[in-house]
Amino acid sequence: MNEFELIARYFTRPPRSAAVVQGVGDDAALLAPTPGHVIVAAVDMLVGGRHFLPEADPEALGHKALAVNLSDIAAMGATPKWALLALALPGNDPAWLAAFARGLYALADAHGVELVGGDTTRGPLNLCVTILGEIPAGQAITRAGAQAGDDVYVSGELGDAALAVAAQSGRIGLDPAALKACRARLDRPVPRLALGTRLHGVATAMLDVSDGLTGDLGHILEASKVGAAVELALVPRSPALAAKLDGADRPAALQCLLAGGDDYELCFTAAPAAAARIAAIAGDLGLPLTRIGTITAAGGLVVRDERGAAIALPRAYDHFAAGAA
Amino acid sequence: MNEFELIARYFTRPPRSAAVVQGVGDDAALLAPTPGHVIVAAVDMLVGGRHFLPEADPEALGHKALAVNLSDIAAMGATPKWALLALALPGNDPAWLAAFARGLYALADAHGVELVGGDTTRGPLNLCVTILGEIPAGQAITRAGAQAGDDVYVSGELGDAALAVAAQSGRIGLDPAALKACRARLDRPVPRLALGTRLHGVATAMLDVSDGLTGDLGHILEASKVGAAVELALVPRSPALAAKLDGADRPAALQCLLAGGDDYELCFTAAPAAAARIAAIAGDLGLPLTRIGTITAAGGLVVRDERGAAIALPRAYDHFAAGAA
Repeated sequence: MNEFELIARYFTRPPRSAAVVQGVGDDAALLAPTPGHVIVAAVDMLVGGRHFLPEADPEALGHKALAVNLSDIAAMGATPKWALLALALPGNDPAWLAAFARGLYALADAHGVELVGGDTTRGPLNLCVTILGEIPAGQAITRAGAQAGDDVYVSGELGDAALAVAAQSGRIGLDPAALKACRARLDRPVPRLALGTRLHGVATAMLDVSDGLTGDLGHILEASKVGAAVELALVPRSPALAAKLDGADRPAALQCLLAGGDDYELCFTAAPAAAARIAAIAGDLGLPLTRIGTITAAGGLVVRDERGAAIALPRAYDHFAAGAA
Repeated sequence: MNEFELIARYFTRPPRSAAVVQGVGDDAALLAPTPGHVIVAAVDMLVGGRHFLPEADPEALGHKALAVNLSDIAAMGATPKWALLALALPGNDPAWLAAFARGLYALADAHGVELVGGDTTRGPLNLCVTILGEIPAGQAITRAGAQAGDDVYVSGELGDAALAVAAQSGRIGLDPAALKACRARLDRPVPRLALGTRLHGVATAMLDVSDGLTGDLGHILEASKVGAAVELALVPRSPALAAKLDGADRPAALQCLLAGGDDYELCFTAAPAAAARIAAIAGDLGLPLTRIGTITAAGGLVVRDERGAAIALPRAYDHFAAGAA
């Protein structure tokens, strides 16, 4: 199968909506934006051997390559519409590609996203997805709107994806059932798109937690020129991670919870008066939205442990740090 | 320098136009499309050791990574507006990045393109650029409009980039001055953006020649459900390539001219009545636009040599062919 046959077979489907004037198969895609909306655009690159093991399940990879981008769209409060996929593949493996396409399209279809363009080439395994979405002009939720006195929230639970990585590398022990649950968080993150759009007019600042809570919350603080006080006891975690926090593995567990990365939950700020509305959204979506602290006027982030002592903050995940894996 | 410092230092500049509501520095960029236009989107991935040598000049790479995408926008007759850059880098080399950014921004600035988002990670060298442009609704020039009786044109000269590759690999001999000129075509392709927009209402079908003339023209024929008769003698080539076509290197030179790839010229079709208008555009732009053949009703592509004999067509470049390098 050559490059063109490969694209035709796995990544070409007729457009499903009038928002796609021309999909895969020309020099470029033609997309019809909704009047009165702005375009929301993000790109993420996943590298084999770095972001995932080369032997990773290709269907899960197809899911994750799109999910991490959808999470960026969710973090703006926007609606995803179109995706472009660039793939470098070490060889021509139709079974791998079929599974990858299955995972990607399943998630795309679940959110009405159309794959409208791409590029495939031979090379070390690399998955690069560009996502385009829309949001009514003026409604996007950036990182810059947090105000002193706002509450800080996160969706879902943090740290399980990092716990899976720690367990797989032997840094921490996990029983098989807990490992399986954590692996699911790592391999099949769920972009919080419904939550993002529900937070228009509610959240004052928002981002997705992809590199770890403290580092990512730090981006909101920097953009909004504020500080924050977070209570460790409030940061939502799974029973498996909670058990590790109470034992000998506490340092590693704390790292997973606060700076593990790969969570793909939303972290947002909101005025205290919005608490009831946020609780209602959580109920509607069946998704916990947990207040973990408060925005402060003074700069910097302080996380206090169960006894009120400030924790030395773990470093955020840095893709260029010498020890990063 | 960590990932965030690196992005801040080399790939963050304040937005220069009102079309960028939010540039680099949030979860996603926010872009204001022009009312009445459609969005034009394409992605290209360049892999170190495959599309370029790892020791390639980083400034030229910055130029080329964007140029190949701009060429796709030109091929639709559209105007480029925004770019997103995903980079996998084997290490943290500020000098390399500074030169790469310089090459990319020089070309972006020349065409009013703003870099609005990106992703950087460690990994085998990989450059993935997504380009977004605009065109008034209904004006895009796709591959599907060629009609029997139309003339077939190409801009500029074909084959020199491939000739540079052939010379570098020792498959063909070139004197130093000719090699330098061919290398410039390979390393610093010039996207034909001004030509693309001038061909609204003139070209019936268009694409850019990136994988070789015969293969790419084949895409127009397939999309338009027509054939074509091309005369080899008319296909524009440099003096260096012309000399090789007359000698012992003729087979390799023919391959460069007809199927070499990396030309980034535009190939388009137009009614014979448009000939004078096309000549005027060529004059205005100082860019040769050469008629090389005719669209035929019968399917398939025939290229006839100087004596009228049909040439066995070289294969288009296939990124997945076993022998592709």
